[in-house]
Amino acid sequence: MSRALQTTTLESPLNDLIDAENLKRVQDQSAKENFRRDETPGLYGEIPLEVVSVQSAHDVEKLVQICMKTKVPLIARGAGSGKAGGAIIETGTKGVICDFRTMNRILRIDRENQLVFVEPGVVLKDLQDAVEAEGLFYPPDPASLSWCTLGGNVATNAGGARAVKYGVTRDYVNALEFVDGRSQKHRVGRPCAKSVVGYNIKDCLVGSEGTLGLLTQMTLRLLPKPRHVGSAVFVFKTRKDAASFISQMSSLSYVPRCAEYLDRESIDSARKLGVPYRFAEDAEAAILFEVDGFHDDALYQELELALKLAEACGSTMHEIALDERARQRIWDSRRALSEATRKRSNYKISEDIVVPRSRIIEMVQTIRERGQGAGLDAFAFGHAGDGNLHVQVCFDDDALRERVLDFHVEIFKEALRMGGSISGEHGIGLAKRESIGLEIDSVTLELHRKIKSAFDPDNILNPGKIFSECA
Amino acid sequence: MSRALQTTTLESPLNDLIDAENLKRVQDQSAKENFRRDETPGLYGEIPLEVVSVQSAHDVEKLVQICMKTKVPLIARGAGSGKAGGAIIETGTKGVICDFRTMNRILRIDRENQLVFVEPGVVLKDLQDAVEAEGLFYPPDPASLSWCTLGGNVATNAGGARAVKYGVTRDYVNALEFVDGRSQKHRVGRPCAKSVVGYNIKDCLVGSEGTLGLLTQMTLRLLPKPRHVGSAVFVFKTRKDAASFISQMSSLSYVPRCAEYLDRESIDSARKLGVPYRFAEDAEAAILFEVDGFHDDALYQELELALKLAEACGSTMHEIALDERARQRIWDSRRALSEATRKRSNYKISEDIVVPRSRIIEMVQTIRERGQGAGLDAFAFGHAGDGNLHVQVCFDDDALRERVLDFHVEIFKEALRMGGSISGEHGIGLAKRESIGLEIDSVTLELHRKIKSAFDPDNILNPGKIFSECA
Repeated sequence: MSRALQTTTLESPLNDLIDAENLKRVQDQSAKENFRRDETPGLYGEIPLEVVSVQSAHDVEKLVQICMKTKVPLIARGAGSGKAGGAIIETGTKGVICDFRTMNRILRIDRENQLVFVEPGVVLKDLQDAVEAEGLFYPPDPASLSWCTLGGNVATNAGGARAVKYGVTRDYVNALEFVDGRSQKHRVGRPCAKSVVGYNIKDCLVGSEGTLGLLTQMTLRLLPKPRHVGSAVFVFKTRKDAASFISQMSSLSYVPRCAEYLDRESIDSARKLGVPYRFAEDAEAAILFEVDGFHDDALYQELELALKLAEACGSTMHEIALDERARQRIWDSRRALSEATRKRSNYKISEDIVVPRSRIIEMVQTIRERGQGAGLDAFAFGHAGDGNLHVQVCFDDDALRERVLDFHVEIFKEALRMGGSISGEHGIGLAKRESIGLEIDSVTLELHRKIKSAFDPDNILNPGKIFSECA
Repeated sequence: MSRALQTTTLESPLNDLIDAENLKRVQDQSAKENFRRDETPGLYGEIPLEVVSVQSAHDVEKLVQICMKTKVPLIARGAGSGKAGGAIIETGTKGVICDFRTMNRILRIDRENQLVFVEPGVVLKDLQDAVEAEGLFYPPDPASLSWCTLGGNVATNAGGARAVKYGVTRDYVNALEFVDGRSQKHRVGRPCAKSVVGYNIKDCLVGSEGTLGLLTQMTLRLLPKPRHVGSAVFVFKTRKDAASFISQMSSLSYVPRCAEYLDRESIDSARKLGVPYRFAEDAEAAILFEVDGFHDDALYQELELALKLAEACGSTMHEIALDERARQRIWDSRRALSEATRKRSNYKISEDIVVPRSRIIEMVQTIRERGQGAGLDAFAFGHAGDGNLHVQVCFDDDALRERVLDFHVEIFKEALRMGGSISGEHGIGLAKRESIGLEIDSVTLELHRKIKSAFDPDNILNPGKIFSECA
């Protein structure tokens, strides 16, 4: 009763203010309900008080002012492809969604300087297509690349399969324009190759999940498009053999573009979904390996070296894919894994831990053994080349949820003990907020709160995400 | 008189406290005088009240506590190779130097995970030699590499000739341990390939010039050592032709390891110093170009393409260097340029601006024309591949100093107008503090002050560097 009353009190000044500023808001209630979730399995938030479709940085400034005035939290959102609940409104709280999908222009591609200027709502795939048409290359490639937005990529520092060679989104952000929690607009970084002037505020924004500022424009760095790409699938009879390949990758003396790990359960799920690539029937694990470069002879030599290593690690079968169609078949199958494994059961909770590459054998075994010990359907796939595993637990009975969460916490602790991390690319958001203390101690979390307060003293921007407000 | 009195009042509690904590301090007054300067031409600071040679993170914590108690500024310092006065004590102020050269252990090279754990006082060249012996590679290579320290490299986000392909120091820092201005020790980042947990405090420390925290340990990322390296010197009859090569580099479809630009004045100075490489007599400008990779055929092809481009841009002579000795001759000559040009005259003031690569022709012409217009011996060399030019002005009469500084400010403004930056790798320190407002507006500078205060509320750490304390 009291909650409904509060909502009414809040809503009227809010929508009046939004209308007075000529901001475009979503009127349809059922459309607003779509904002209760992102791609985090099983996580639902509140229906937003308002969803404002911003058109410009000036719209964003006005919206922040309205939220400051009414003390209503403001949550930035792109495609809602996040996997940590960073763009939903926490249950029991209120919020306005700043929907950036309407700011989706590729403003300029600067071919000579290998830069592109974009608004945050641009879909990653659209950017990749546009720059590749100019012979350029934007490496970050999260599995959601066909629909996720660049603003979300920057806000979460998205990674992807090519990170092992090319790094993550942060490595391609040269400059940002953003609006802070006091509606101040900042331009940080420079639209050139290097700058060491002042604090690195740009990189502080990257990965801050909408809690420090709202991105309104980005300058991204591009590379020449690699001339040749070659892929391989190496099939192994045990997951330990596959993991052993990854551990020994440093002996290759070059950095592959991708080295993805797939457990049998992932492969089976993909097969059931009917993905285009046909994995060998008896595969207990597989590595999807890829190299790229300027010269095709070098490529063949690199693939040959990798094949030798795979065979030395016990690989029983392989396939080399050099043409684009064959490669695409493999990658479409890899990218379908998240969806495919979701269909194994009623519920799925997935995580994205990181371990040092040399510990990947240990981690793969740990997931298997502890999963079996707890009676859980636990397995993994992911960007093993940089030690980033997406640990999956599928279950049918909701009563198992607590046990699954406990399992994940155990895996987090193991990852940290090995020198890894509790998140490699999904971020913390709401989903892992209670676990952040496992990785970051209270003294450093206190420093986080001070940094937050420097950017957003009234705690307007996505409050309660990443870490809770008080110690 | 009053100043001497103050010093006495401050010094006694300070040295008692330092002795009570068993910290090692430099007793010899003339040794302390060496700390009045770094590599910034013409800039001298105060003699430090104390120079403490720290041995451990715990020493650093104790020292920060002493400085908090006595309200004496604490200035972190490695080799003193900085070029912006970041590690000296501003005239008219007092300070204690925290000398990190005594914390210089390479703690561990992790070959499998391609990481190295180091203390901040390690000399860059020592690190490079150690990891190359293991088949690994640490790319950042500022010209001072044989004596600068890694802590200083991280604190200034040092670059170098290879940045065009491999990026700068920031791109190789995976984790940091540091002590903040309240003597709190933090560990940020993780000793693995990826982590998106919490704010990116690590990258905020990189380039913060000792104003946010004192680095006590660093985890650096390594690459496999490239199997083959090939260098070339392209000689041009006009500086415009050379700059035109740089502008068109994006047409090469690969990223070279280095593309250094040298004006005739730089070449002449090098020749006079007697550097080992013999540049062509009539060279008006030269490009030092380098490629590296896994496969030698690819390398030859890349060099051939570059040579074609150079000839199309009017290059009249070239030399290709494929063996290590020939390459070393070229690089020793390049690295001697700073010293060589210093000998042209009584005084030299140099800057390190950045422009987008496509504007480098314009900038090279601007430096020449404005220099001639002002009657100054102005020229440039530097890492042109990423648009980073070290602009040099040599002069004999100290009365010209104001005119030289004005000239540099004009060049800064031009660089910014072109979308560049006032510093590509040297940083701001004291030397460019008054110019930071040209690049960063007052709203964003205010945010800098808040960030500073989050890390160092009492303004103990290197106060007054990068920006002045009040607006």
